[in-house]
Amino acid sequence: MEKRGLETVLVIGESTLGNPELAYVAGTTIPRGGIFVKRRGRDPILVVSNIDVGSARRGRVRKVQTYTDYHYERLIQRHGRERGYVKLLQSLLRSIGTEGRVCIYGHNDFSRLLSVADSLRRLGYRISGESDTTVIESLRETKDAAEVERIRDVGVRAAKVVRCTLQMLRECKVSAGKLKTKKETLTVGMVKSRINGLLAEHNLMAPEGTVFAIGKSSADPHEFGILSEPVRSGEPIVFDLFPMAADGYWFDLTRTYVIGKPSRRIRRMFEAVLDVQLKSLDSIQHGVPASQIMNHACDTFERYGFKTIRATLKGDRAASRVGFIHSLGHGVGLTVGEKPYLSLLGKDTLRTGQVFTVEPGLYEPKVGGVRVEDTILLRRRRIYNLTPLEKDLTI
Amino acid sequence: MEKRGLETVLVIGESTLGNPELAYVAGTTIPRGGIFVKRRGRDPILVVSNIDVGSARRGRVRKVQTYTDYHYERLIQRHGRERGYVKLLQSLLRSIGTEGRVCIYGHNDFSRLLSVADSLRRLGYRISGESDTTVIESLRETKDAAEVERIRDVGVRAAKVVRCTLQMLRECKVSAGKLKTKKETLTVGMVKSRINGLLAEHNLMAPEGTVFAIGKSSADPHEFGILSEPVRSGEPIVFDLFPMAADGYWFDLTRTYVIGKPSRRIRRMFEAVLDVQLKSLDSIQHGVPASQIMNHACDTFERYGFKTIRATLKGDRAASRVGFIHSLGHGVGLTVGEKPYLSLLGKDTLRTGQVFTVEPGLYEPKVGGVRVEDTILLRRRRIYNLTPLEKDLTI
Repeated sequence: MEKRGLETVLVIGESTLGNPELAYVAGTTIPRGGIFVKRRGRDPILVVSNIDVGSARRGRVRKVQTYTDYHYERLIQRHGRERGYVKLLQSLLRSIGTEGRVCIYGHNDFSRLLSVADSLRRLGYRISGESDTTVIESLRETKDAAEVERIRDVGVRAAKVVRCTLQMLRECKVSAGKLKTKKETLTVGMVKSRINGLLAEHNLMAPEGTVFAIGKSSADPHEFGILSEPVRSGEPIVFDLFPMAADGYWFDLTRTYVIGKPSRRIRRMFEAVLDVQLKSLDSIQHGVPASQIMNHACDTFERYGFKTIRATLKGDRAASRVGFIHSLGHGVGLTVGEKPYLSLLGKDTLRTGQVFTVEPGLYEPKVGGVRVEDTILLRRRRIYNLTPLEKDLTI
Repeated sequence: MEKRGLETVLVIGESTLGNPELAYVAGTTIPRGGIFVKRRGRDPILVVSNIDVGSARRGRVRKVQTYTDYHYERLIQRHGRERGYVKLLQSLLRSIGTEGRVCIYGHNDFSRLLSVADSLRRLGYRISGESDTTVIESLRETKDAAEVERIRDVGVRAAKVVRCTLQMLRECKVSAGKLKTKKETLTVGMVKSRINGLLAEHNLMAPEGTVFAIGKSSADPHEFGILSEPVRSGEPIVFDLFPMAADGYWFDLTRTYVIGKPSRRIRRMFEAVLDVQLKSLDSIQHGVPASQIMNHACDTFERYGFKTIRATLKGDRAASRVGFIHSLGHGVGLTVGEKPYLSLLGKDTLRTGQVFTVEPGLYEPKVGGVRVEDTILLRRRRIYNLTPLEKDLTI
């Protein structure tokens, strides 16, 4: 905070769900959220509603207070919802003696909080935004041992879900290129229901969905799979699972499978993807710019003769749909897309304690997609792969 | 927009998940979010990443563009992540000829977007916040027919999940006051796993969790249930289910059950709660202030001899844990807590097209809690209960 000239940090949210900034500083889930406030050199305070005191105490902030301690109910009665809230923040900032620069974090509807921030400015508070990288992003970028264990635990369960799903596919018979259960043709929708059931059994959920895309639809990395489509043999299946546990921590893994015999083209794509992934995992170490790993991945793909996203940047718009068309990875923690970003344009540096994905992929509209993704932990010169799952193409 | 002096609306988000403002204006789920922009009197534009064009086209905005159309990649290359983003917004605003007041909506980390907004202000744009009630909140407060159907559909499935859970409880034997399956003592954790499985079977999830709290722990309306606790007969079970479907729409329902014979106190509490709920449902109609329904609920509880949250407002702090200690209800839609709020201090008026909960409850730390909650639709002078589930106390 000192280096950034920050005197007071406020983290605000209506819930910790969907608000990784508040979830991080609170260190627990709080259904109705609250206000975290910390002045430089002082202990932080967490202010929550009466009914969330129990939840808040399970977290990392020792000093838990309630809105009622600041007479919030009376403030709303007297001044209305918005002005009452401004008065609440004012009395909170006054109680800790804030005089310097204040930054406000947390996922909130921008319009309403801007109105609050502008009111505080008019009262003389020096509210300022923080650009890339915010202090909370910075803190969240590396994970402590407890966070790593939470993420690892989601990964162990996610791998079990994938294995049980494969078991379901293996128990089917193939007839005329389609998978059949004892009763009927297996569809993507049926597989997804099974995946959701397996996630539930393992106390996970996938609020952002799951990718289980087959054949040509797998060529679009953001096609989640067409529910009515039958599961076909001989075509690539991109299975990307990114579940969240109740504590808010995520995991991210992708495998590509072919039931029966893959085409030569798919084998060739798979070989390149796996080679790029292993080379990337080998070259990751503390201190390396993330964009360097991404650039090397592009180099390797291009040596294999595949197009990469670098061509798009040079103005080749067709290249945005063919070849290696996304970034190599992203951080995983209280979200499934955070720093570090292993992208061409990102400025992040790989550092000890980061947990992130390594997920090269190749896409060809007429063939389909191939992507292999692990979530890993970086410690100094080596990585720990948190993804206990084999990478066979055929099942 | 005109009444509010608003010339341009921007709705921004990294995803539609956890961003009800963007989900609403886009009318669909977009994994990586985007920028919605609408100038008064013009058609809106939705700008997304290349890979989300398919998702975006499924929504309600006809004009879908990509970041690449605005050379965003090159802007980041040249100016960095933050200034690149400012330049992107600038060129978007310039392309639609914005000159007047601009409001920015959507759940985003406040600090970073404030920095962007301040940069736009320095470029001459009139960015302002909007206080209670924002234009997007206003639009979201009433539901159109398609939204009602989505919510109703979640309710039908949620009711099935509750019924199947009850079936599981009925199949147990009671021995020494505890429920036993064929093999073992039934715990809250086992019931919750079953609930999660049932949710998955019905393509629902509960990202904010589920309340299944027994006996004294049910006296805290935000205790979600202690996983290791055995399910006991003769004690109240507060079962509050608030699931979300993949399209982002929620539902909210609560029932209170006793396995075997309830105590006289619990029966008395249940009787009062049910009476308050039915009286509230009867008095709800278009044009009534929401706080009036809440006040009448408090009147009825107080006539029964129970304390209410009104005592807290008068300074009786003990009252914050005993009696009717929360609001009577809240809107349901793309979130499970939105306008209208049926609270003492809220200023919302009940109106045709609103979907909201009616959930009186009573809590006594030495006994437990009783809460009954339905989600309903209001149309003119009558309500449509969207909760197809009976309200028996005993099972």
